[in-house]
Amino acid sequence: MSKLRFRISMSLDGFVAGPRQSVDDPLGIGGMRLHEWVFPLAAWRAPHGLEGGEVNESTPVVEESLANVGATVMGRNMFGGHPGPWDAKEPWNGWWGVDPPFHHPVFVLTHYPREPLELEGGTTFTFVTDGIEAALDRARHAAGGKDVALAGGASAAQQYLAAGLVDEMEINLVPTLLGSGERLFEGVGDDLHGLELVRTVAAPMVTHLKFARR
Amino acid sequence: MSKLRFRISMSLDGFVAGPRQSVDDPLGIGGMRLHEWVFPLAAWRAPHGLEGGEVNESTPVVEESLANVGATVMGRNMFGGHPGPWDAKEPWNGWWGVDPPFHHPVFVLTHYPREPLELEGGTTFTFVTDGIEAALDRARHAAGGKDVALAGGASAAQQYLAAGLVDEMEINLVPTLLGSGERLFEGVGDDLHGLELVRTVAAPMVTHLKFARR
Repeated sequence: MSKLRFRISMSLDGFVAGPRQSVDDPLGIGGMRLHEWVFPLAAWRAPHGLEGGEVNESTPVVEESLANVGATVMGRNMFGGHPGPWDAKEPWNGWWGVDPPFHHPVFVLTHYPREPLELEGGTTFTFVTDGIEAALDRARHAAGGKDVALAGGASAAQQYLAAGLVDEMEINLVPTLLGSGERLFEGVGDDLHGLELVRTVAAPMVTHLKFARR
Repeated sequence: MSKLRFRISMSLDGFVAGPRQSVDDPLGIGGMRLHEWVFPLAAWRAPHGLEGGEVNESTPVVEESLANVGATVMGRNMFGGHPGPWDAKEPWNGWWGVDPPFHHPVFVLTHYPREPLELEGGTTFTFVTDGIEAALDRARHAAGGKDVALAGGASAAQQYLAAGLVDEMEINLVPTLLGSGERLFEGVGDDLHGLELVRTVAAPMVTHLKFARR
């Protein structure tokens, strides 16, 4: 069966976003520091339409995380914009412009119904109002035998982790402190539901910790 | 100058002790899970007077952490026993029996004065009531040119980290969740005071992350 694979960058003190997230500061204050390791990489630049870049120990980890993914699930907060019902006049269409880097179906967890949003390059956002399991079922179906990526944010990840639905988890541990913000492991209890550390990769600016069921 | 070196085992969700620490459960509920990686090691067993044991990727890390240490600083909660003034009739003499594994001077941060406690094997506990810097000064003097180990617990570590007094930090990251308890990085802000990740060691059951000033 296709796996639900989750990857996220987390600070040494456990935060995956800084405080005071907003449209102007979607990762919260200081949150961009969690992602500085990835931007120089050719493996990250290519799917974003950029040439050049570095190759280092993180490269195979990033390539692996992008390979064999047929659909994505994400929370409403990661899709972004504003809380509450969707604005019909000026609809929020995500952070990623007209050609988002997903290039496959994306399922957005939300309490508020909305028609699917089809953008360029094969990315379609479908809004799911009946919970995390329904969203995962639909994503699995859409993935056509490939895996499903769980993109975040913290709240969506916590729900899938607590329910034991995550099959693989790559924590990109960034050796810095944010001090405050959104913690990944908040309210998920003390059970990793069989996920064990199966690979550690030391790279410049980040340590990759891969968890899977043995 | 002699360094202040701090090592501690921390769960993936950032806890260094479980909830409800007590005399019966000094590491809190589940806290022992943070230390299971170290007990099988010959490098841990030898200073505790035990023969045999394993040698693996953690061995040089543990040996390094024990080498060139001339004194230790710890918080009152790590020394343990009970809160408040010392019990003169039945004094708490630490968790470690008559021959503690330190074998050098140990300085205990406390609000309550007490005469020094001399135990077997070269371990003397001195109780310091005038703050973390005074305790560090006394430990450095006692260390005779060697380094000072910061043993914990969380509160003492947080004070030294927030003050920027830690020169080296080894986080033994254990790939498990405790879910609750004492977090290491709580109230220390977002500043590592120049500490950078300088070494990552992947070992069975633990990932060692060494921080130092470059």
